[in-house]
Amino acid sequence: MKKFYLTPGPSEIYFTVPDHLKEALNKNVMSISHRGKTFQEMCKFTIEQVRTLLNVPQNFYIVFTGSATEVWERIIENCVEKHSYHLVNGSFSKRFKEFGDMLGKKTTTYEVPFGEGFDIEKVQVPTDAELICITQNETSSGVCVPLEDIATIRKRFPEQLIVIDAVSAVPYPEFDFNQFDSLFFSVQKGMGLPAGLGVWIFNERCIAKAESLKKKGLSIGTYHTIPSLVKNIQKFETPETPNVLGIYLLGKVAEDMNRKGIAEIRKETYFKAGITYQFFEDSELFEPLVKNSKHRSQTVLVANVKSGDASSVIKRWEEIGLLVGKGYGDFKDSQIRIANFPTFSKEIFYQLIDFFEKK
Amino acid sequence: MKKFYLTPGPSEIYFTVPDHLKEALNKNVMSISHRGKTFQEMCKFTIEQVRTLLNVPQNFYIVFTGSATEVWERIIENCVEKHSYHLVNGSFSKRFKEFGDMLGKKTTTYEVPFGEGFDIEKVQVPTDAELICITQNETSSGVCVPLEDIATIRKRFPEQLIVIDAVSAVPYPEFDFNQFDSLFFSVQKGMGLPAGLGVWIFNERCIAKAESLKKKGLSIGTYHTIPSLVKNIQKFETPETPNVLGIYLLGKVAEDMNRKGIAEIRKETYFKAGITYQFFEDSELFEPLVKNSKHRSQTVLVANVKSGDASSVIKRWEEIGLLVGKGYGDFKDSQIRIANFPTFSKEIFYQLIDFFEKK
Repeated sequence: MKKFYLTPGPSEIYFTVPDHLKEALNKNVMSISHRGKTFQEMCKFTIEQVRTLLNVPQNFYIVFTGSATEVWERIIENCVEKHSYHLVNGSFSKRFKEFGDMLGKKTTTYEVPFGEGFDIEKVQVPTDAELICITQNETSSGVCVPLEDIATIRKRFPEQLIVIDAVSAVPYPEFDFNQFDSLFFSVQKGMGLPAGLGVWIFNERCIAKAESLKKKGLSIGTYHTIPSLVKNIQKFETPETPNVLGIYLLGKVAEDMNRKGIAEIRKETYFKAGITYQFFEDSELFEPLVKNSKHRSQTVLVANVKSGDASSVIKRWEEIGLLVGKGYGDFKDSQIRIANFPTFSKEIFYQLIDFFEKK
Repeated sequence: MKKFYLTPGPSEIYFTVPDHLKEALNKNVMSISHRGKTFQEMCKFTIEQVRTLLNVPQNFYIVFTGSATEVWERIIENCVEKHSYHLVNGSFSKRFKEFGDMLGKKTTTYEVPFGEGFDIEKVQVPTDAELICITQNETSSGVCVPLEDIATIRKRFPEQLIVIDAVSAVPYPEFDFNQFDSLFFSVQKGMGLPAGLGVWIFNERCIAKAESLKKKGLSIGTYHTIPSLVKNIQKFETPETPNVLGIYLLGKVAEDMNRKGIAEIRKETYFKAGITYQFFEDSELFEPLVKNSKHRSQTVLVANVKSGDASSVIKRWEEIGLLVGKGYGDFKDSQIRIANFPTFSKEIFYQLIDFFEKK
């Protein structure tokens, strides 16, 4: 029986990945030099496909890291001298904030309980904070920050840099890159790719900030500083030998998604999320964790298990080959998380829902 | 015509990689959770296979990073408060030293001209230097540091931590882990794996040093600090979502090499290097860059092209499917570099040599 990994990352690979892997072997993608023309063309292609897919304006650079976790570190090293501001509503946004602490920065936090969204009125960024960190889609709780709230924060705090952690959101949200300065994600979630690659997108304001810290004699890192990444990506190269295969596969899957059309992917995602939340609402076994529907993630769907424990529910789905995620951390026994990523067809979600509705 | 990437990294993949990739697809390696039992068992297996292959004692930890370049940064962040000492004889050892500068450390260097080895008598490590950085195999120049010289340095400077950059050397040298505290490599060279994974090996002394810096209130980083890596690897996990596929393939290829036997791999490597250097010596077209045979790398074989430019020579080999590397950086037109990694059979090297000898 074919298994479907509806876990929120690593997740089911995009259905075209096996063919692209075969093609990569035929083309010797794993052996080519990362300083040669073949790599440069491949890297350029991937950047163009990602730019198209996410509608990234030309004034933003797209570069590669080892993971999204790495970007938490790099953006604080490069864009924060003293003080960062964090919206915290789950384990990942909290860890992002802790990276600021570990790097010796002052961090100010607006924290809400697990499963709740932010009250936009309560976002009060100190004037000396340099970077506003927003986890647009909390993979641990399935809470999202509505895009209009990001626009409101931008309007109210135009001086600060704004960075969006879009790890488990991409490619679904229709981001407006005018509303922030940086965005990053990892490829093993919505893109359906093998883990081991982070994608970091940033504009000239981030570069200027990094350069200004450097001019002050502060260390902003070594090979993965913003200036070093920019210098290399202008030649469609990377500072180190990168995950060449990962960059290749990202370009190919982004191309597949562009061919299908992001509008269609969004429509399907919205539909699958809708029927699943409806199922949670109607079910006696589940209830949506996130009460306010405008804070409900469309890509990571989280529910409380009202009776019994999560693992027994998960086991039942496993019988029909559907692997659903446990709750995160302390909630592993009481919650489930379902990845609603582009590789899953509507049919998979009908199966998922019907299985319990029939009982 | 099948092409063979005899370039010193990325290089030809180990001949079993395509089969392991297929198996990885069948086993859903790219979709499993990095917090689950399947991953932990896989991670444990990889560590055991690497430990066996390189004869790593049990008191050394084996952990994973995004690249060997990353380890340059991490070991300085974690093991150097003020001062590091560097043996520099090529582009990579020089860049390692520059990482120290960029991180605001004092660096002391013993530098020799490109293509030369070190005079062990001239290694004078200041008493306040905390870390001795040795690039055992300079991928840019094909110069190696003899293992007995490492032992001598250890004997003369027992207080300092010693780290070995073994990027393009592994698995060939018969390292004695009692002679140093840390060693690292990347997988796209001798191991013949897709790039995007670094392997970092270190002992308790490195952990103690990192802990002592942390206690002093110094920042040693965030997710990829030694304490964070150790805490996770004790559960056979990683701090971030890692390159799961890379870890899987490393375990499989290390197992293949263990099955063949490292002694056999060493013997073949030594033989292929021997006939190639002899060819360089005898040829009117080439001469070995490294004059002192005890400083000649057995895994990256570098020669000066005596007449004409390197690219025309390289093009001729390309006609028979053998892709040889250019010289590094400024030497790209005047030198060639041949990777002598385990995946290449003796027959490939006979072809390589015969092609020019017949002319």
